[in-house]
Amino acid sequence: MTTSDNKPKLTEISTLGEFGLIDRLTGSINVKNPETIKGIGDDAAVVDHGGQCAIITKDLLVEGVHFDMVYTPLRHLGYKSVVVNLSDIYAMNGQPGQVIVGLAVSAKYSVEALEELYAGMLLACEKYQVDLVGGDTTSCPSGLTLSITAIGKAEKKDIVYRSGAKHNDILCVSGDLGAAYCGLLVLQREKQTFKANPDMQPGLHDYEFVLERQLKPEARKDIIEILRKAGVKPTSMIDISDGLASEILHLCKNSGVGATIYEEKIPIDRRMAQTAHEFNIDPTTCALSGGEDYELLFTISQKDYDKIKDVAEIHPIGHITDSGQGENLFTSSGQLVKLAAQGWDALKK
Amino acid sequence: MTTSDNKPKLTEISTLGEFGLIDRLTGSINVKNPETIKGIGDDAAVVDHGGQCAIITKDLLVEGVHFDMVYTPLRHLGYKSVVVNLSDIYAMNGQPGQVIVGLAVSAKYSVEALEELYAGMLLACEKYQVDLVGGDTTSCPSGLTLSITAIGKAEKKDIVYRSGAKHNDILCVSGDLGAAYCGLLVLQREKQTFKANPDMQPGLHDYEFVLERQLKPEARKDIIEILRKAGVKPTSMIDISDGLASEILHLCKNSGVGATIYEEKIPIDRRMAQTAHEFNIDPTTCALSGGEDYELLFTISQKDYDKIKDVAEIHPIGHITDSGQGENLFTSSGQLVKLAAQGWDALKK
Repeated sequence: MTTSDNKPKLTEISTLGEFGLIDRLTGSINVKNPETIKGIGDDAAVVDHGGQCAIITKDLLVEGVHFDMVYTPLRHLGYKSVVVNLSDIYAMNGQPGQVIVGLAVSAKYSVEALEELYAGMLLACEKYQVDLVGGDTTSCPSGLTLSITAIGKAEKKDIVYRSGAKHNDILCVSGDLGAAYCGLLVLQREKQTFKANPDMQPGLHDYEFVLERQLKPEARKDIIEILRKAGVKPTSMIDISDGLASEILHLCKNSGVGATIYEEKIPIDRRMAQTAHEFNIDPTTCALSGGEDYELLFTISQKDYDKIKDVAEIHPIGHITDSGQGENLFTSSGQLVKLAAQGWDALKK
Repeated sequence: MTTSDNKPKLTEISTLGEFGLIDRLTGSINVKNPETIKGIGDDAAVVDHGGQCAIITKDLLVEGVHFDMVYTPLRHLGYKSVVVNLSDIYAMNGQPGQVIVGLAVSAKYSVEALEELYAGMLLACEKYQVDLVGGDTTSCPSGLTLSITAIGKAEKKDIVYRSGAKHNDILCVSGDLGAAYCGLLVLQREKQTFKANPDMQPGLHDYEFVLERQLKPEARKDIIEILRKAGVKPTSMIDISDGLASEILHLCKNSGVGATIYEEKIPIDRRMAQTAHEFNIDPTTCALSGGEDYELLFTISQKDYDKIKDVAEIHPIGHITDSGQGENLFTSSGQLVKLAAQGWDALKK
């Protein structure tokens, strides 16, 4: 495209956002190698080398975008950076086994600070029985960037993609939603208070639940194990990193289906709701658009429902429809509204 | 450690450098999973899922540290970012099959700029028959950071580590060394000239060879294929990213051996030597400490020597000794000097 003076017109990244940009950059890519089972477009890539499949995923965490050093302890950051990657492996119904750590640090960080960061990463590795097997450590002009790659495994027949949801399947989520976002709101408020009056002690004692969900999330290894023991293979699955609404749209787009969910079925913790009200935000909005919950969103066949209906940590929130019906929320007040992805997007303004 | 006023004493990263820092952060890590064949300490990690082994490596490229946008075309940067990772897979005697791209970009980059970057990455994928299978794209406060993960495969018995060199083995390198560093010197000089006088045209026409080695390096897939066809499995191997001297020290440390190399045997291209002389640098210094050559350094048994002695692109440069003798260079003037790692270290001052 050119303007009238023949200079090429340049497009700001923020006009496309993360998913628009990825579509534009990778839309024309074709896979060449027969062992490449899954390329771009799921929680992780899948490669079949003849035994179990390798499942590989990567997430970047950038200072000033994904975390603020004012209120993020380095040990927690290390823990979280590993967990968010393991979450992607579980979302493929895989078992993570290894992580590789890429670290770009500026001179403001001391060796002791990086030891704290590693202590957190190794704590997560210990808890999830994962090996830290390598990486790349380098300097950068400012801040800290973490790039973690996680490697998992699964039998080819057990892998669950985003693309398998079928009409009439039941849509389920694990745990509860929205708390990580409320934790972030509390931390941002305390940062402002501290900037206004540095002698003020932070008032964080009433917010332990939401703060822990923000600073030290866990990946739902337990849910994968419960489903396996119950003999249930989800028809599709994704982890909730950008908010429930955004993930439902991904899942429906990849599966070529629609979905209807019910507001009253969305699992919300009382402590999250209390914090949301304090900030004058609807708890449902936190659940739909908050992000960083790292819960699992998945679909199961109706025939499997009895096998999981008594599991306290699994909540049916709606069902899959045909694609013509789109993605809808049936609100507590009885209205049917279209779901929109208003989740967090690092690339949008 | 504490100082007299009981405040903990913090250590600057630059006092340790990359390898010292990695040792300190990862020295105590033990591997838990039986499928983890190789963890930290080689060109790549190796995981055995029952078929062929998966080989996984990662490299970060940071604007202002690894590249300067003033003289690095984005298409070349994309190409190089893939190639340097494939080089690590070849250095394990593996066959790369997939790459995953992590990209953190600031708002100064346009969508069209990122399309150029991707065009370069996809060109490398095409040339080396590798699939781009996923990634993570995010914003960052400044600059551009690329984090590429490459995935390869190999039969377990074929994988070559840094640790297998034996007394009396022959030390070989592929291609020629030092040219990438000379290319960097030329680009840096032209940048200074341009800053002093922006109307000056860059004088790059006499330097095509060294510039291409810096801006668009290739990975030595061909060497791996030549060795395989010749029926030679190297006893140890590493790729030359930080300079020949540094890589020899890595290989000897990991193998528990020493080495003696001969200055007159180090392969140097006439065009590199010419540029080095122009900058008043000894060409041997460029080869030993320049870095970014992405040639392969490997050892073979004496019995295999006849099988490769006529290959023009493979050069014997010395032999492995026992560890007590250390790592030495026999200079053209007949002196024996200790090899020191003076290669590039992003974390040292």
